[in-house]
Amino acid sequence: MALTVVGSIAFDSVTTPFGEREKMLGGSAVHFSLAASYFTDVRIVGPVGDDFTETELGLLEGREIDTSDIERVPGGETFYWKGSYGFDLNTANTEETRLNVFGEFEPKLSNDSASADTIFLANIQPSLQRQVRRQCSSASFSALDSMNLWIETARDELVEAISEVECVLVNDAEIRQLTDQPNLARAARAVMEMGPEVVVAKQGEYGAALFTRKGFFALPGFPLEDVRDPTGAGDSFAGGFLGYLDGEAGTVDESKLRRAMAYGTVMASFNVERFGTERVAELGRDEIESRLEALRAMTAFEGS
Amino acid sequence: MALTVVGSIAFDSVTTPFGEREKMLGGSAVHFSLAASYFTDVRIVGPVGDDFTETELGLLEGREIDTSDIERVPGGETFYWKGSYGFDLNTANTEETRLNVFGEFEPKLSNDSASADTIFLANIQPSLQRQVRRQCSSASFSALDSMNLWIETARDELVEAISEVECVLVNDAEIRQLTDQPNLARAARAVMEMGPEVVVAKQGEYGAALFTRKGFFALPGFPLEDVRDPTGAGDSFAGGFLGYLDGEAGTVDESKLRRAMAYGTVMASFNVERFGTERVAELGRDEIESRLEALRAMTAFEGS
Repeated sequence: MALTVVGSIAFDSVTTPFGEREKMLGGSAVHFSLAASYFTDVRIVGPVGDDFTETELGLLEGREIDTSDIERVPGGETFYWKGSYGFDLNTANTEETRLNVFGEFEPKLSNDSASADTIFLANIQPSLQRQVRRQCSSASFSALDSMNLWIETARDELVEAISEVECVLVNDAEIRQLTDQPNLARAARAVMEMGPEVVVAKQGEYGAALFTRKGFFALPGFPLEDVRDPTGAGDSFAGGFLGYLDGEAGTVDESKLRRAMAYGTVMASFNVERFGTERVAELGRDEIESRLEALRAMTAFEGS
Repeated sequence: MALTVVGSIAFDSVTTPFGEREKMLGGSAVHFSLAASYFTDVRIVGPVGDDFTETELGLLEGREIDTSDIERVPGGETFYWKGSYGFDLNTANTEETRLNVFGEFEPKLSNDSASADTIFLANIQPSLQRQVRRQCSSASFSALDSMNLWIETARDELVEAISEVECVLVNDAEIRQLTDQPNLARAARAVMEMGPEVVVAKQGEYGAALFTRKGFFALPGFPLEDVRDPTGAGDSFAGGFLGYLDGEAGTVDESKLRRAMAYGTVMASFNVERFGTERVAELGRDEIESRLEALRAMTAFEGS
């Protein structure tokens, strides 16, 4: 099986109460790819500028991520984000955003990328998400992320994009905002009525909830005493979730979706333990499995 | 086994987007007692005024709650709270609070109430919680709730009260505030260092998390499309949690604590489905068990 992700490749400068980093590799497609790379073959599609070097490429290729559809824009600079987190780490304060080459991004997928079984449309303009979805006509499972900006400025286009994917994977606040429905169960049902069969509501430190036509499932965030940098946690969640689904043979069913939620939770927890990609780029599969088992032990209870 | 709760008995006037009620029976000790009454013998201790009638008494006694320690203050009026909830139901807007007889409350426990095995010190002044805890010297398991008011105005007394109970059961925001520690796992550990062996962080619609010296456990809120009135949900949670623990033979262990969390979650979910005590006063044990099984099915996943 194969998984293609289309989204941002970035340099992030991040300050948290636990340290700071200048221009480290980031972006939704990067965090997603690294997390997914533990489960399946991943292709990353996104634009970079001249400042993107062999070092960054090497980090991705070290995880055997196919980088041949990374588009190099001559004379351009890579998307740059600078932000900080306060004491509670729940809210990012954006200090600077330079879209650079990402502002003009028009996804061009090679045949190999376009023929993936699974695709993740990271948080980009809904019209671009639709273009990519159309190019990947053989994909059996596609998911998209989005954000308040697109709900506010491109709602109709976003609803169209949602109608064309199998899965929506966004923050719970965005599900409520999109559907104008504060009750999350009703909001998720309203999203399913737009088309998707699977809705994943990311809830930050509270974990994530899965809604399907058949039922509901939820997991808490993995409890950690040391959280250093939450940047990319949602994309690492998505990478674990979709990477696992793509790596498993056969059709997506409830049981696989639940394990996918667990792998998403595990990958997000590794993501936040260190800055940027530092932790997720260097994992062993055994660490992933043992954290999954720990999560299972933390959420199980016996009937009466 | 027997369980005594000390706290407020109130009349609540509540408006939500789904309706309104005038002067219905409420208060933390009431919501707690009703939820706990499905699991064990409950005694309620709290003050009421002349406006507390046989109707309210009958509602409690209909659930076989022992009301003999309800203190009637001649010429007084019962604690009154008036509040409303907006579209998202997460934040109560207090419109009026009249402490009335609750303002002068000095808990006096009969021998029967004082000899309970389990006690719940609902959200009252920490110095009163300590008085009650001392009166119940034979209780093997005691828990307290609290709020931001006491953290801000009576912190030292609250820390003393906490040091004298086995379990703290409060909102997660209060655990962070009390310990000045935004990381919940660290904050819970800091509370355990004050004395208790069990810390339960209530997280509203996101569920609840259990911290003990041995581990961590968490459950999501039970997903409901129809939430009408969240008033009393936290106390119903506590009632299910402590009621179940008290009703089970033998010492409190991890496995029982987890099932107690599940019963707490279930009772809170019933609480919010209708106004005030309307739903929890009229349950069947079969409804409770089948919702517990549903919750278990919603949170289980298989290992890989």
